[in-house]
Amino acid sequence: MSKLTMLGTGLIGTFYTMTLHRSRSRDRVGVVYSRTPERAKAFAEEWDIPEWTTDMEEAIRHPETEAVVIGVPNHLHEEAAVLAAKAGKAVLCTKPLARTAEEAKRMLDAVEEAGVFHGYLEDLVYTPKTLKALNSVKNGALGKILWVRSRETHGGPHSDWFWDKNKAGGGAIVDMGCHCIEIARSFIGKDVRPVEVMCWADTQVHPIDAEDHAVGLVRYANGAIGQFEVSWAFRGGMDLRDEVAGTEGTVWLNHWLRTGFEMFTATGEAGYVSEKTETDQGWLFPVGDEVDSLGYVEMFNDMLDSLDSGETPTEDFYDGYVVNAIVDAAYRSAESKQWEPVELEDWRGLEEVEQEERLTEYDEAHYLVKEETMPDGRTKLILKEKDSGEIVQKVV
Amino acid sequence: MSKLTMLGTGLIGTFYTMTLHRSRSRDRVGVVYSRTPERAKAFAEEWDIPEWTTDMEEAIRHPETEAVVIGVPNHLHEEAAVLAAKAGKAVLCTKPLARTAEEAKRMLDAVEEAGVFHGYLEDLVYTPKTLKALNSVKNGALGKILWVRSRETHGGPHSDWFWDKNKAGGGAIVDMGCHCIEIARSFIGKDVRPVEVMCWADTQVHPIDAEDHAVGLVRYANGAIGQFEVSWAFRGGMDLRDEVAGTEGTVWLNHWLRTGFEMFTATGEAGYVSEKTETDQGWLFPVGDEVDSLGYVEMFNDMLDSLDSGETPTEDFYDGYVVNAIVDAAYRSAESKQWEPVELEDWRGLEEVEQEERLTEYDEAHYLVKEETMPDGRTKLILKEKDSGEIVQKVV
Amino acid sequence: MSKLTMLGTGLIGTFYTMTLHRSRSRDRVGVVYSRTPERAKAFAEEWDIPEWTTDMEEAIRHPETEAVVIGVPNHLHEEAAVLAAKAGKAVLCTKPLARTAEEAKRMLDAVEEAGVFHGYLEDLVYTPKTLKALNSVKNGALGKILWVRSRETHGGPHSDWFWDKNKAGGGAIVDMGCHCIEIARSFIGKDVRPVEVMCWADTQVHPIDAEDHAVGLVRYANGAIGQFEVSWAFRGGMDLRDEVAGTEGTVWLNHWLRTGFEMFTATGEAGYVSEKTETDQGWLFPVGDEVDSLGYVEMFNDMLDSLDSGETPTEDFYDGYVVNAIVDAAYRSAESKQWEPVELEDWRGLEEVEQEERLTEYDEAHYLVKEETMPDGRTKLILKEKDSGEIVQKVV
Amino acid sequence: MSKLTMLGTGLIGTFYTMTLHRSRSRDRVGVVYSRTPERAKAFAEEWDIPEWTTDMEEAIRHPETEAVVIGVPNHLHEEAAVLAAKAGKAVLCTKPLARTAEEAKRMLDAVEEAGVFHGYLEDLVYTPKTLKALNSVKNGALGKILWVRSRETHGGPHSDWFWDKNKAGGGAIVDMGCHCIEIARSFIGKDVRPVEVMCWADTQVHPIDAEDHAVGLVRYANGAIGQFEVSWAFRGGMDLRDEVAGTEGTVWLNHWLRTGFEMFTATGEAGYVSEKTETDQGWLFPVGDEVDSLGYVEMFNDMLDSLDSGETPTEDFYDGYVVNAIVDAAYRSAESKQWEPVELEDWRGLEEVEQEERLTEYDEAHYLVKEETMPDGRTKLILKEKDSGEIVQKVV
Repeated sequence: MSKLTMLGTGLIGTFYTMTLHRSRSRDRVGVVYSRTPERAKAFAEEWDIPEWTTDMEEAIRHPETEAVVIGVPNHLHEEAAVLAAKAGKAVLCTKPLARTAEEAKRMLDAVEEAGVFHGYLEDLVYTPKTLKALNSVKNGALGKILWVRSRETHGGPHSDWFWDKNKAGGGAIVDMGCHCIEIARSFIGKDVRPVEVMCWADTQVHPIDAEDHAVGLVRYANGAIGQFEVSWAFRGGMDLRDEVAGTEGTVWLNHWLRTGFEMFTATGEAGYVSEKTETDQGWLFPVGDEVDSLGYVEMFNDMLDSLDSGETPTEDFYDGYVVNAIVDAAYRSAESKQWEPVELEDWRGLEEVEQEERLTEYDEAHYLVKEETMPDGRTKLILKEKDSGEIVQKVV
Repeated sequence: MSKLTMLGTGLIGTFYTMTLHRSRSRDRVGVVYSRTPERAKAFAEEWDIPEWTTDMEEAIRHPETEAVVIGVPNHLHEEAAVLAAKAGKAVLCTKPLARTAEEAKRMLDAVEEAGVFHGYLEDLVYTPKTLKALNSVKNGALGKILWVRSRETHGGPHSDWFWDKNKAGGGAIVDMGCHCIEIARSFIGKDVRPVEVMCWADTQVHPIDAEDHAVGLVRYANGAIGQFEVSWAFRGGMDLRDEVAGTEGTVWLNHWLRTGFEMFTATGEAGYVSEKTETDQGWLFPVGDEVDSLGYVEMFNDMLDSLDSGETPTEDFYDGYVVNAIVDAAYRSAESKQWEPVELEDWRGLEEVEQEERLTEYDEAHYLVKEETMPDGRTKLILKEKDSGEIVQKVV
Repeated sequence: MSKLTMLGTGLIGTFYTMTLHRSRSRDRVGVVYSRTPERAKAFAEEWDIPEWTTDMEEAIRHPETEAVVIGVPNHLHEEAAVLAAKAGKAVLCTKPLARTAEEAKRMLDAVEEAGVFHGYLEDLVYTPKTLKALNSVKNGALGKILWVRSRETHGGPHSDWFWDKNKAGGGAIVDMGCHCIEIARSFIGKDVRPVEVMCWADTQVHPIDAEDHAVGLVRYANGAIGQFEVSWAFRGGMDLRDEVAGTEGTVWLNHWLRTGFEMFTATGEAGYVSEKTETDQGWLFPVGDEVDSLGYVEMFNDMLDSLDSGETPTEDFYDGYVVNAIVDAAYRSAESKQWEPVELEDWRGLEEVEQEERLTEYDEAHYLVKEETMPDGRTKLILKEKDSGEIVQKVV
Repeated sequence: MSKLTMLGTGLIGTFYTMTLHRSRSRDRVGVVYSRTPERAKAFAEEWDIPEWTTDMEEAIRHPETEAVVIGVPNHLHEEAAVLAAKAGKAVLCTKPLARTAEEAKRMLDAVEEAGVFHGYLEDLVYTPKTLKALNSVKNGALGKILWVRSRETHGGPHSDWFWDKNKAGGGAIVDMGCHCIEIARSFIGKDVRPVEVMCWADTQVHPIDAEDHAVGLVRYANGAIGQFEVSWAFRGGMDLRDEVAGTEGTVWLNHWLRTGFEMFTATGEAGYVSEKTETDQGWLFPVGDEVDSLGYVEMFNDMLDSLDSGETPTEDFYDGYVVNAIVDAAYRSAESKQWEPVELEDWRGLEEVEQEERLTEYDEAHYLVKEETMPDGRTKLILKEKDSGEIVQKVV
C-alpha cells in the first residue's frame, strides 16, 4: 500500500486520483494540494482524501507521504520536483516532464542527486493495447521497426494555462507530441539514439501564439522514423492512433474513436461517453473504460510496484528528459525550416547502431530485390545484377 | 480486503485468480482446491496462494475464508454451493449457475435459507463497454429496447467435461447462451418477464451428443426479443458481439475481434494475443487487456464491494436461476420445434407490463406512420386513415 | 445494345434507369410507363427517355422494346409479367417476384409457356462484395456452409403502398426478407432444398397491420441454416450486412454503414450521402457508389449479357418463386408459432443431400472431437471413446 | 463510342482495358502496342482486340483510333505523347505524367500546341468514395481544409522498370506520391498554389538506388498542408487511405484493407482477393470491385464523356505537370534537408490567397479561443485579452 500526495486538482489530478482510488485498490491519496482552497477542499471531499492544503511544500513534506504525484501546470513541475527531491520523497511527474530539455535536466539531476525514486507519468505507453503490441514487437513479430506514426488530435485542452505559451512551454507539440514521441521511441527501441528532427508547425485556427497543429519526423540512429501528428483543431472527438511498420509486420492501434463501441442516439441522452466528444446525438463512439484505455491503470501499477520493489519503472525522468530534447529540436526545426539535431548532453543508450545489411544474395551474379507469387503459381523475381547494378526480372 | 477460497484450477480459475490478484489489489486467494493434488499444488505456487487441498469441504470451511469462488465443472456447482451455504460463507458461482433451473432453484434456496451473500459470476454483463452502454440505455439514449442480439462463437471449449452433455448440462447453449441471455435481459430490463423461447439447435460438426450450434429467440412480456447465437464451430477466433436496437437508437459492441488492435506478422512471433485465436501469422486481432475486456475486473469489483457493504450485487443466484429457466425452455423448444414457455415458479419482477401505445395521432382523421425529409427539402408523410385503415402518402 | 421499357417511376425505377443509363453504357430505356401522366412525363424528361405513356400494355408492346423492366408495386407484378409474356418480350421483374408463391408460380408458368427470357432483379446477390465472396465460397475457402445471417434494417420504406399489407403482400419480411433469403440460398447452394422455416414477426412500432420487425430461420436439407433479420424500426440509417460461417472459414460483409468511408461534419452541409441516412450532422457514413454497392450494376450486366447470349441469368423467375415459397412459410410460422414446411410443388434442385459424416477417426478406439495447440507447444486432444461414448482429454 | 489505341500490356494496360471493355460498355480498344510481339498478340487475344503491333507510331496513327492511352513505362511517356500530339489524336497518359516537371512541361506544350484533347489518368482522384467526399467538401461540410494525409504503401511494384531509377524517374515518391499529392491538391483546392515541400526519403529495405519509403509535407499558399506517405516496404497488403481535416469536419477514406469485406479461411482457397495481398490463409480483406474502387471506371467515364462533349476533363496534363513539380521539390528537399520551393514557371491558379482571419471577437475586451460545454451543463470559455494577450478562462 502506498500513501500519496497529489499536487493539482485539474482534469489530470482527477484522472490520477480516480485511478489510484479505483475499486479494490490498496493505494490512497492522503493529501491534496491546490493553489485555491475551495478546489483543494472540494477535491478532498469528492475523493475522500483526509487532508488538503494550499501549501505545496507542506503537502510534499507530509510525514505519511511516501510519494508525490505532480499534476500541476508545466511551469510548476520543476519547483515541485525539486521540493520533493529535497524532502526525500519518491516523485511521479505528469507529462511533459518540463517545458525544455534544460529544465528537464535540472529536474533529473535533482532527483538523481537526492537518490529518490522518480517516475515519468507517460500514460499512453501503458495502454493495454500498447503494452501487448510492444511485447509482440519485442518477440520479433514485426522484424525491424522502420516507421512509427503516433497521432493525438482533438479540439483543444480544457484549462487556460495550456493555451499560454509561457506556462505550457509551447502548444500542441509540447502538450501531445510528448506522448507521440515516447510511443515511437518505445517501439523503435529506447536505447536507439534520436538523431534529428524535421517539424512543421502552424497556428491555423486559434488566436494564440503557440502552434495548434504540427507534424514532425524524428530520425533515429538506425534509420527508423518516428512521426508525430498533433492538433488542437481536429473535429469529431479525440483521434488517438498509432501505426507501426516493420520489415516483417504492421501494428495499427486505435485507442479512442473506433474501439468496437458504436452508438446511435436520436434522443441525445447517452450521458457521458468519453473525453473530448463533440456531439451528443447521431452516431457516437464511446470508450468503455477511459482510465484503462488511456494507460493510467497500468502506469500506476508499474510505478507503485517498482517503488515497492525498488526497481526502475519503465518510464522515469531520464525518458522525460529525452522527450523534451526531441521537442526542443522540433521547435527549432519549425523555425529554421530544416532538420535540427537532437541535443542530448547526457545520452545513456547505444552509441553505435549497426546498419542493417540490405543486400540479400540471390545467386553469384545477383541480389534479390523482390520475390512474388504470380496468379498462375509461378514465381517472379526482381533481381539486381551485382556488376552492372541493373534491375532485371525473371520468372521461374 | 477479502480472503477467498478458489474451487477449481482450470481456465476459469486462472482468469479469476489473475483478476483477484492483479497489481495493487487488496484481495487474495488464501486456499485453492482441485481434485488433483498436482494441479492444486502447481496452481498455489503459480499464484502465490498459501494453502491448497483436494478436500472441497476443507477448502470451503477454512477459518480465514470469507467467500468461496466456485470455478469447478457445472455438475459440481450444487454440491459446492450447498457446502458453502452450510458453512455460512459468502459464495460466488461461475456461469451457468446450474445445469437446469431445478438445480439452480435448489442452490438459490440453499443460499437464501442460510442467509449468506451470493453472487452469480456472469462476467460479460460487466465488460466496461457493456456497463457504459447499459448506463446510456438507462438514460434513455435508445428509447424502448426492441431487440438485442448477443453472440458468442468460437472453435469449442478447452476442457473435456464441457463436451460431456451430462457433466455440462448441454452444449453450446448452456455454455455460452447463458451469457447471451443475461446480456439481453440486462438491456431489456431484468424486471421484465421472459415469456417464451424458440430455439434451433444442431450438432453440425463434432461427434458429440450435445449441440455445437444454436440460435434462439426469447420473447419478453413487453414484446422485446433477446436473440442468442452460440457456436463451437466458428472459424477465425472468438466472435463476441452484442447489438441492441431501440425505438430511438442503436448500440453495437464488439468485445473481441475488432477492438481497434490490428497486427500483421509474417514471422508469427507475436506471442500470446488472445483467447481462442486460431492463427499466429498474417492478420491478427489481439485484445489489449483480456480480463478487463471480458468483464472479470468490474465483476469482482461489484461482488467484493457489495460483500463489504452488505448490498446485493448486480448479478446474484436469482439471476442465474432465471437464466437457467430460459435455457431449459430453449432445450425444450429445440426438441418440440415450437415456442416453449419459460417456467419460472419464483418470479420476482413485474407481473404486468404495459404495452406501448403504437398510435401517434397526426390529425383528426389520421395516424402518423412515417415522416421523412425528401431531397428537395419537403416533408413526406405516410399516414393511416383512422376510419378506413388505409395508408396514404402526403407531401407538405 | 438493349432497348427497354421501364414500368414504374418510383425509387426503384429511378435506381434502375440510373444504372442502365450510366456513363458509357450502350443500353437505353426507350419507353417509360406510370399510372400518373405527370410522373411519366417528368421521369422521361429527367432520364432523356424518348417516349412515355400511362398505358401499361402499350408500353410493353412498343415495337422497339426488347425487354420490359417491372418496377411497379408488388400487386401489379403478375399483370405486368403476363402482359409481357403474351407480347413475347423478355421480362425483368423487381423483388419480390410476387406477394405469394401461388402468384409467383403463375408468373413463372406464364413466362415459361411463352418461352420468353425472364430475370429476377434480386440486386443484393450481385453486389461486388457478394459476387467475390460467392466465388471464394465456391472455391472452397469456407468449407461446407453451416449458417448464413443476412440482415436488412432501416427506418421504413418511402412509398405508401409498401405499408399496405394487401398491395405489398406483407410487411418487412416480403419487402426485405426476400433479399436475405436469396443471399443465404446463394451461399448455401441453390440446389439444396429449403425444408422448413421458423419465424418471429411483430408490429413493434408502427400503426400498421403488417409486421415491422421479424427474424426467421430457414433450415436446408443439408442442415445449413439461413437466418434473416428485417426491420422497419431500426435507427441509425440502413444496416445491410451478411455473415457466413463455414466449417473452414467465415465471411463478413458490410454493404452500407461501415465501408471505409467516415465523415464528421459540424455544418451539416455534406449533401446527399446515402439512402436511408437519418442525420446530416456529426459522424456520417456515406456510401461511395450506391447503385454499384447495391448490386444494380452487376445485376443488369448479367441480365442483359444473358439476354444477348441466350443464356439463363443467375437469378430468374424460378428463384423468385422459391423465395416466395420460403416467405410464405415464414408467415405461416409467425402465426402457428412452430416450424412450417416450405411448400414447393415444383422443386428443380437436388432431391437427396448426403449428410456429412461428422466422425473423424483418431485411433482404433477413439474419434477426434478437438485438437488444440497449448501455450507450451504441446497438443491437447479431446477424444470420444468409440465404445463408451465417453469424452476424454489427452495431451501429447 | 470511342475507339482507342492501348500502348502497353503490363498491369496498368490490363486494368485500363478491363475497365474500357467492361460489360455493357460502348467503348473498345482497337489496337494494342507492345515492344514484344508475343505480349502484344496474347493481350489482343485475351481482350478481343482486333489489331496488335510492335510499332508504336503505327499504333498511334491507326486511322480508326480516336484516342491513345499511354500505359508504357515512365521513360517512354514523352515520346508517346509527342507522337500522339503530332498525329492529332486525343491522348490519355497514365500517372505520373513524366519523370520530371521539365519533361512534363514539354509534353504539356506538345499537346497544347497540337490542340489535341489531353487527360491525365490519375485514377485515385476518381474513386467513388473520393468523388463523394470531394463533393461534400465543396458543399462546405468540412469548412476550410487544414490538412490532408494521403497514404499508399505496399510491398513494391510488379515490374522491373519501376525499380530502375532512370526509367521510373525515382522510387516510391514518383510511383505513388504522385497519387497522394493530387488527392491532397483536390481536397485543398486545385487553384491554391503549392508553395514548398519538406520531404524525408530513404532506402530502408531493398538493394536499390531509389527510395523505398518517404514522407513529405507540401505547404499550400493558404496554409493548408498535404502530407504524403509512400512505401514499398509495407507488410500486410496495400494500405490506401486518405484523411482530411477541416475547420468544421473530418473525412477518413479507406480504399483497400478495411472496406467492409472480411474473410477468414483455413483452407487458403479463396482465389484472387485483391491486388498486393500477401497471404492466402487466415484473415483476408478482399476488395469487391477493384477497378471501380481504384477509380478506373469513373476516370474513363470522365475522360471519354469529356472527349465526346469537347470539355476539359477533371484531370489533364496541366495537373500532371503540377504534380511533377511538387515531386521534383520533394526530391530536392530529401537531398538538401530543408524546405524546397515548388518551381512552377506556368502557374494557372490563384495568385493571392486571402489568409483567413483567426480572431473571433468574444466581447470588447476579449477574443474567443475555445468554448466548451462542461459535464454540469455550464459553458467554459477560454478567452484572450485583447490588450495584454493573456489567456483567461471563464465559466458562464
